[in-house]
Amino acid sequence: MFTLYYTPHTCSLASHIALEDAGAAYALKRIDFDTEEQKSADYVAINPKARVPIMATPRGLLSETPAMLAFIAQSFPEAKLAPLDDAFAFAEMQSFNSYLCSTLHVAHAHRMRGHRWADEPASFADMQRKVPQSVGAAFELIDRLLLKGPWVMGEAYTVADPYLFTLAQWLEADGVDPARIPRVIEHRARMAALPNVRKAIAEELAP
Amino acid sequence: MFTLYYTPHTCSLASHIALEDAGAAYALKRIDFDTEEQKSADYVAINPKARVPIMATPRGLLSETPAMLAFIAQSFPEAKLAPLDDAFAFAEMQSFNSYLCSTLHVAHAHRMRGHRWADEPASFADMQRKVPQSVGAAFELIDRLLLKGPWVMGEAYTVADPYLFTLAQWLEADGVDPARIPRVIEHRARMAALPNVRKAIAEELAP
Repeated sequence: MFTLYYTPHTCSLASHIALEDAGAAYALKRIDFDTEEQKSADYVAINPKARVPIMATPRGLLSETPAMLAFIAQSFPEAKLAPLDDAFAFAEMQSFNSYLCSTLHVAHAHRMRGHRWADEPASFADMQRKVPQSVGAAFELIDRLLLKGPWVMGEAYTVADPYLFTLAQWLEADGVDPARIPRVIEHRARMAALPNVRKAIAEELAP
Repeated sequence: MFTLYYTPHTCSLASHIALEDAGAAYALKRIDFDTEEQKSADYVAINPKARVPIMATPRGLLSETPAMLAFIAQSFPEAKLAPLDDAFAFAEMQSFNSYLCSTLHVAHAHRMRGHRWADEPASFADMQRKVPQSVGAAFELIDRLLLKGPWVMGEAYTVADPYLFTLAQWLEADGVDPARIPRVIEHRARMAALPNVRKAIAEELAP
C-alpha cells in the first residue's frame, strides 16, 4: 500500500497518474497550500522539505518526483512503465525526468516561488518577466529533440509521460506560446484522453 | 569506452570520480568555459543543452548527472556503486541525487548564473545575497537528515558520495558557514582522502 501526499496543480499529479498506471493500491492525502499545511508541524514531520509530493511506501517515505516515478515503475514491473531490462534506455528516461525537475520545473517556479532565490519585489517581477523565455526554451528543446513520439521515449509509454504531461499543464499560464511546441501539445492531448489520467485529475479536483 | 565532456569546477567532477570508482575505460574531453566552448557549434551538436557534463557511451550520449551516475553504477555492477538489487534503497539514492540537482545545485547557480532566470543587475545582486541562505538551508537539511554516514547512504559507498562531494566544493564560496554542517564537512574530508578522488581532481586541474 502506498500513500501519496499531493496538492492539486502541483507536480504530485505525475506520481498520482503513475500509481494509477501501475495498478497500485494507494491512498491519497491532500495537503492544503491555502492554509500552508505543507509547513505544518505534522506535515514537516513526514516531509522535512515542506513540499509535495512525498509517498509513504511499505519500506518508508520517498520524495523527489524522478525517484518516486522510477520506484513505482520498478515496484510494478508487469505494468511496463520503464525499460527496466535496458540500462541505457532506463538512463535516457532518467535523463529526461532529471531535465524536467532541474531545468523545466525550476524555470517555472520562478513565476510564483521567487522568494526561494531572492528577497526583493523588483527581483520577483524580473523573474516573472523571464519565465516565458526560460520555460519556453526548455519546452522547445523537448519539442525539437527530446520527445521521441508518440510517447516521450518513443513507442513505449513510460513514467516520463505523466511527468511531461503534468508540467505541460502550466505552460499557457507561464506565457509560453503553444504554437511553438506542437509536439508537446499533441502529447498533452494524447495523455489527457487516457482514462487513468482523467481519473487522477478528477480525484485531485474533487471537493 | 566512455568519453566524459567536463569542465573543471563544475558538477562533471561527480561523474568523473564515479567512472574512476567503476574501473571504467574512459577518455576526457575538456570544454573551456573561458572561451564559451560550451556554446560552440561543435559542442552544441553533441549537447544541445550547451552545458557540461555529457557522456558518450557505446549506446549513445547521456546528460544529466543523476542519470549518468545511475547508469555508471548499472554498467559496472561489480563495482557496487549503487544498491542495484534493492529497488527502495536505489530509490533513496536517486531521491538524494535528485535533491542535489534540483534544489542544492539550483540554489548555488543563482550566484553566477542568475541570467538564466532574470535580466536585471539588481536582481542578480539580490540573488547573490540570498545564496548563503538558500544553499545553506539545503546543506543543513542534508547534514541533519539525509546524510546517513559515514557515506551518504550509510555503510555502503555509492555514486551519491562523489555527487555530494562535488557540490560541497563550492560551499565556502557560496558563503555557507562550514561550522553549521559538520557532518557534510567530515564527509568531504573523507572523500578528499580517497585515491580515486585525488586522481580525478588532479586530472581536471592539470594544465
